[in-house]
Amino acid sequence: MPFESLAQRADRRRFLKPFTGEAPWPPPMWLMRQAGRYLPEYRQTRAKAGGFLDLCYSPALAAEVTLQPIRRYGFDASILFSDILVVPDALGQEVRFVEGEGPRLDPIEDIVGLSRLNANRTGEKFSIVAETVTRLRQDLPDETALIGFCGAPWTVATYMVGGRGSPDQAAARLLAYREPQIFKPLIDLLVDVSVEYLTLQVEAGADALQIFDSWAGSLPEDQFARWVTAPTRVMVERLRKRYPEIPILGFPRGADQLSAAFVEETGVDGVSCNTAMPVMGMVELAEKTDRVVQGNLDPLLLVAGGQQMDERVVEILDAMKGRKYIFNLGHGILQTTPPENVARLVEVVRRDG
Amino acid sequence: MPFESLAQRADRRRFLKPFTGEAPWPPPMWLMRQAGRYLPEYRQTRAKAGGFLDLCYSPALAAEVTLQPIRRYGFDASILFSDILVVPDALGQEVRFVEGEGPRLDPIEDIVGLSRLNANRTGEKFSIVAETVTRLRQDLPDETALIGFCGAPWTVATYMVGGRGSPDQAAARLLAYREPQIFKPLIDLLVDVSVEYLTLQVEAGADALQIFDSWAGSLPEDQFARWVTAPTRVMVERLRKRYPEIPILGFPRGADQLSAAFVEETGVDGVSCNTAMPVMGMVELAEKTDRVVQGNLDPLLLVAGGQQMDERVVEILDAMKGRKYIFNLGHGILQTTPPENVARLVEVVRRDG
Repeated sequence: MPFESLAQRADRRRFLKPFTGEAPWPPPMWLMRQAGRYLPEYRQTRAKAGGFLDLCYSPALAAEVTLQPIRRYGFDASILFSDILVVPDALGQEVRFVEGEGPRLDPIEDIVGLSRLNANRTGEKFSIVAETVTRLRQDLPDETALIGFCGAPWTVATYMVGGRGSPDQAAARLLAYREPQIFKPLIDLLVDVSVEYLTLQVEAGADALQIFDSWAGSLPEDQFARWVTAPTRVMVERLRKRYPEIPILGFPRGADQLSAAFVEETGVDGVSCNTAMPVMGMVELAEKTDRVVQGNLDPLLLVAGGQQMDERVVEILDAMKGRKYIFNLGHGILQTTPPENVARLVEVVRRDG
Repeated sequence: MPFESLAQRADRRRFLKPFTGEAPWPPPMWLMRQAGRYLPEYRQTRAKAGGFLDLCYSPALAAEVTLQPIRRYGFDASILFSDILVVPDALGQEVRFVEGEGPRLDPIEDIVGLSRLNANRTGEKFSIVAETVTRLRQDLPDETALIGFCGAPWTVATYMVGGRGSPDQAAARLLAYREPQIFKPLIDLLVDVSVEYLTLQVEAGADALQIFDSWAGSLPEDQFARWVTAPTRVMVERLRKRYPEIPILGFPRGADQLSAAFVEETGVDGVSCNTAMPVMGMVELAEKTDRVVQGNLDPLLLVAGGQQMDERVVEILDAMKGRKYIFNLGHGILQTTPPENVARLVEVVRRDG
């Protein structure tokens, strides 16, 4: 099936309009991690799945949880339900999710650990995810865009090397300093397989892609250039060659002052801003780069709700009006979020149309 | 004893020169958490002390560990060995240090928890810390400046409310959103007692003060203004009234783009920059604010060492030369730092004289 042009797709799916140069108002909106534990229907589906990765690898259940927030809130975009650690899992690294503690991996500490990874075996797991995407594109309302995603090589590597989440990503950062002859091939491998992974998602029907670099903010600029900007640039170049019109959003969380350079050097079509980015910072980023900007309501303010949330949303909207802008949170929605606050958020963002 | 003027003190203690408008070269240097577990002599003293807080509350041992890095490396400044959680401990909140896990406090969740804090009983613990400062000023070389410090109200409150460290400071952030009628009095109380605490340190001989706001970076700008900038401004105003010449450094870690506004609105004499701040960001901050800038070598690069460390240090020095600048890390020195890398760092910073 030949791809429709971006303009054609944007006619039906307003999430895509900012990427065609328009500034639709109210802005398109979705929320990072919008399919998740704050929804009772998610918790029900999750209970059927066994482990967390079983949910990611069940096309029927993964598609179901992806659809749940669309049914409730009618967001302009859905995002494939999956996890950034599907990539190391597909490469053969052992990945376990410990309830209440987060992911655990057998850490890669040396050349032996690196050599155990096998890029040739990723197809099995990736094709299951692609099947979820295919289902979703069939089941989603035609006006809802579908975002595919992966973790950025740097962020995925922090888990692969550290074996778990950590506040400072010290294990990966130290390996990068001390043994770049191990760390660089790991990043290169992640670039390769992530491009293949995203390719499968586009082929299966993803309208846009987001690359999550949650731990970009822990790096000083020289390391940021090497491990965040450079690998992302290669990914964007390769994807662009295959799909000149698929919008790619970067999310170098915490990049802050480095965001504009990140956008320009990687060539992403848009950038997601984290909570700490000032509204004026988002405005300047939009003006400097002329790309799509997405963000950045504090997820905790969505938990708290009330008038202060309404006011902050209006403040963000006022600043971003007339720009190529997508409303979102500054980070993923939290488990403790009352679903009625999300309904209120949608109302506030959309009443200003 | 009347205080010497800042100019007089700066004549003998070059750490203070940037605060008199000079740009001495090589720049004055010290390292955050320079008295710590990376030093074998620290671990020996620590073993004698019992618990971690016992070490903080033993003037003889606390002074000893403060002096250790000065003996080894001849830094231009020493910093009182203590902990930011001395303040909640002095207020009567239970504070325990769990080996390998960090601090645990009985969290303040409501007005009852708040009402248990007692500002009138802080004198007992604070006077012990002041005794350490008195000893230090006697035992330190005359050319070594002595920095007093405390945690900023926001950062201390994150521990008091959350009961422990956390990656997102969610408990305190949520209390601030939901129950400002509890959170605001807590911050106000911390402003009051922290000013008294720093006052005692100055009276006992501290040459300069640093206010550590390690978790400033988790706040969106409106919350940053309310819980980081505003309380710090009040502290600086009150301290300045008492001691017009005592230099005050702020360290709003992660403030990034908000750093310049923080400096201007709080009136601090200098600002410490974290690792993610680009060198050009430090240069712009120095130019925009005309205050002292301090920072920001990656502590992990000091662990890794080698030529890449030397090169990065030279890069920072080249950018900051001729400015009112103090060399430091972007965050505290890590336990895994080889002491010989610190010796090398001192050599590289000072050879460029």
